[in-house]
Amino acid sequence: MLHIEHIGIAVKNMEVSQKLFTTLLNTSAYKDELVASEGVHTLFFRTGETKVELLAATNPESPIAKFIEKKGEGIHHIAFAVKDIRAEMQRLVAEGYVLLNTEPKKGADNKLICFLHPKNTNGVLIELCQDNPDSN
Amino acid sequence: MLHIEHIGIAVKNMEVSQKLFTTLLNTSAYKDELVASEGVHTLFFRTGETKVELLAATNPESPIAKFIEKKGEGIHHIAFAVKDIRAEMQRLVAEGYVLLNTEPKKGADNKLICFLHPKNTNGVLIELCQDNPDSN
Repeated sequence: MLHIEHIGIAVKNMEVSQKLFTTLLNTSAYKDELVASEGVHTLFFRTGETKVELLAATNPESPIAKFIEKKGEGIHHIAFAVKDIRAEMQRLVAEGYVLLNTEPKKGADNKLICFLHPKNTNGVLIELCQDNPDSN
Repeated sequence: MLHIEHIGIAVKNMEVSQKLFTTLLNTSAYKDELVASEGVHTLFFRTGETKVELLAATNPESPIAKFIEKKGEGIHHIAFAVKDIRAEMQRLVAEGYVLLNTEPKKGADNKLICFLHPKNTNGVLIELCQDNPDSN
């Protein structure tokens, strides 16, 4: 794990939350991206080396819609930057952690990503992410 | 807001969670500190410029015990490093945010801290923290 790449926050209304975090962080969002495959609209803010990612559902089947239904708005996941996502996935499986996807998948912000099952991580949804070498 | 200083994670059993995060982050905790005034045992890990802080209750009245009772284990708060905590508190109050303490208080890791009410921050408990100039 190199550092915390971003923190994902589930929000109901992107317009309201964009204003709220723009004021709070005292900086404007620098990236606005739809990830159709996950049913999410994402918005990124920079704060040092760790980004804040707001996540709003684009349809009722989106994992973000389901998360908000169960738990309300709030922190959804922490993403750690890794150099070699496959090596890190192998290391963690060998240590007994459970992966939610066995192959890295394409996430927002040109990343290859993998989630760990929160049952092994104190209820915290953890994402590994690596810069996607195919996206440049 | 300079950067994300740390992420606080509420845990039930520090011994179990210490092992879990030591393996996950592939690094050992570098600081172990009791904050008697808050009823918490804290343990810090470094991951780049953002630390991971595990928080376990030391008594049933601790805010961490109450958090776990309501929401279960998981992410408790995000702390942002600020240069001048009083100036940042003033700025945020003027913008309509609500502070949980009107004077900075002493937190773990030699910091002056202040929490924002999560009702104005999408359900995310946010801490401001500044290095405590009186603690060196």
